[in-house]
Amino acid sequence: MELTEENLRKIIHQVIQEQLGSNNDPNAIPIGVSNHHIHLTQEDFDKLFPGQQMEKFKQLKQPGEFASKQTCDVIGPTGTLKNVRVLGPVRTHSQVEIARSETFLLGVDAPIRLSGHLEGTPSVRLRTKDAEIEVQGVIVAKRHIHMSLEDAKRFGVKMGDSVAVEINSKDRRTIYDDVIARPRKDFVLEMHLDGDEASAANVRGNTVAHIIPKPKSTF
Amino acid sequence: MELTEENLRKIIHQVIQEQLGSNNDPNAIPIGVSNHHIHLTQEDFDKLFPGQQMEKFKQLKQPGEFASKQTCDVIGPTGTLKNVRVLGPVRTHSQVEIARSETFLLGVDAPIRLSGHLEGTPSVRLRTKDAEIEVQGVIVAKRHIHMSLEDAKRFGVKMGDSVAVEINSKDRRTIYDDVIARPRKDFVLEMHLDGDEASAANVRGNTVAHIIPKPKSTF
Repeated sequence: MELTEENLRKIIHQVIQEQLGSNNDPNAIPIGVSNHHIHLTQEDFDKLFPGQQMEKFKQLKQPGEFASKQTCDVIGPTGTLKNVRVLGPVRTHSQVEIARSETFLLGVDAPIRLSGHLEGTPSVRLRTKDAEIEVQGVIVAKRHIHMSLEDAKRFGVKMGDSVAVEINSKDRRTIYDDVIARPRKDFVLEMHLDGDEASAANVRGNTVAHIIPKPKSTF
Repeated sequence: MELTEENLRKIIHQVIQEQLGSNNDPNAIPIGVSNHHIHLTQEDFDKLFPGQQMEKFKQLKQPGEFASKQTCDVIGPTGTLKNVRVLGPVRTHSQVEIARSETFLLGVDAPIRLSGHLEGTPSVRLRTKDAEIEVQGVIVAKRHIHMSLEDAKRFGVKMGDSVAVEINSKDRRTIYDDVIARPRKDFVLEMHLDGDEASAANVRGNTVAHIIPKPKSTF
């Protein structure tokens, strides 16, 4: 990169943001990278882990959400993902969230959907040492931003709105459009991306995102 | 998606583009997805494949470029990529191109670079049944567009220019900025993305890209 004044300003901005994350910028949105994971109903949990309780392994950023100690294998027509983490608490529908790149490995053409929107989604088998069950509900998560009601007001968005988000990381400037706003009273500001999206945008520890005006499309 | 007139127009545009690819649109840029691969010097090739010639396995889109029949394992400090394809013809420097997601598996923090820009890049070991050598030059490819000189004129860009590119695929609208223009007399119009970038933008067989004005940044 040529060291023009413009480029120098860009570099200094990036380094400060890498150092400070969102601390110094109220509009900066922290990024949470979601690895593949599973949500289970109580019934499916009891089948896969008979006699066990769902145990907390790690608290997640959204209140009440946690990674459990339990994992299971996800088996598709052409491949298997081993030791996929079960997230808690239990839900009203079981659901498997994978990255687009993992759809090729499993051999399931999972659609891009918001959590819980499972109509017409493909099925896979879940296997533990105790059981193997079929679960319908494999999705690639649609990018979204958890936020408080105050955040939503500040950003001028409401539940379900689609916004464009800029990630200005080292050597990869990326704009993800169609990012869905999900305000809720108890949510903490955090954009969720999957591993493909995080790598494509070169997201590192302190990388943050900003909502920008929707770029004009060619159609 | 609500079936407003605007959304219907978007859907019809996408379906036509999925069907016809770039045939009906002179500004549409075909997308080539690069899996991880290796370029070798004649000397390194001879060490890894003693007594062999580089044999063509598959012609690539850019003239003279091909995937060879030869593969080797790429060994990093924390992991190995098996059977990575060697591309031909031989080059003046050996080079290993991986996706950002694969840097974690190998345990090498490879920088994002244009092909051939190898100063300060990490090393890995390459292994075949006959030999194991160390090679310096692991990079994550910087997104770029191969184009003819006529394409460059039409797009109003010159060698090394950075442009913003829109990929308007089903359910994931993505804008990759800092895409480098690489015009050359004999190049064929094609944007190169790696697997992370293709998955993050939900690129499918006929998905195309368009150059758009650079979206305004927050900095």
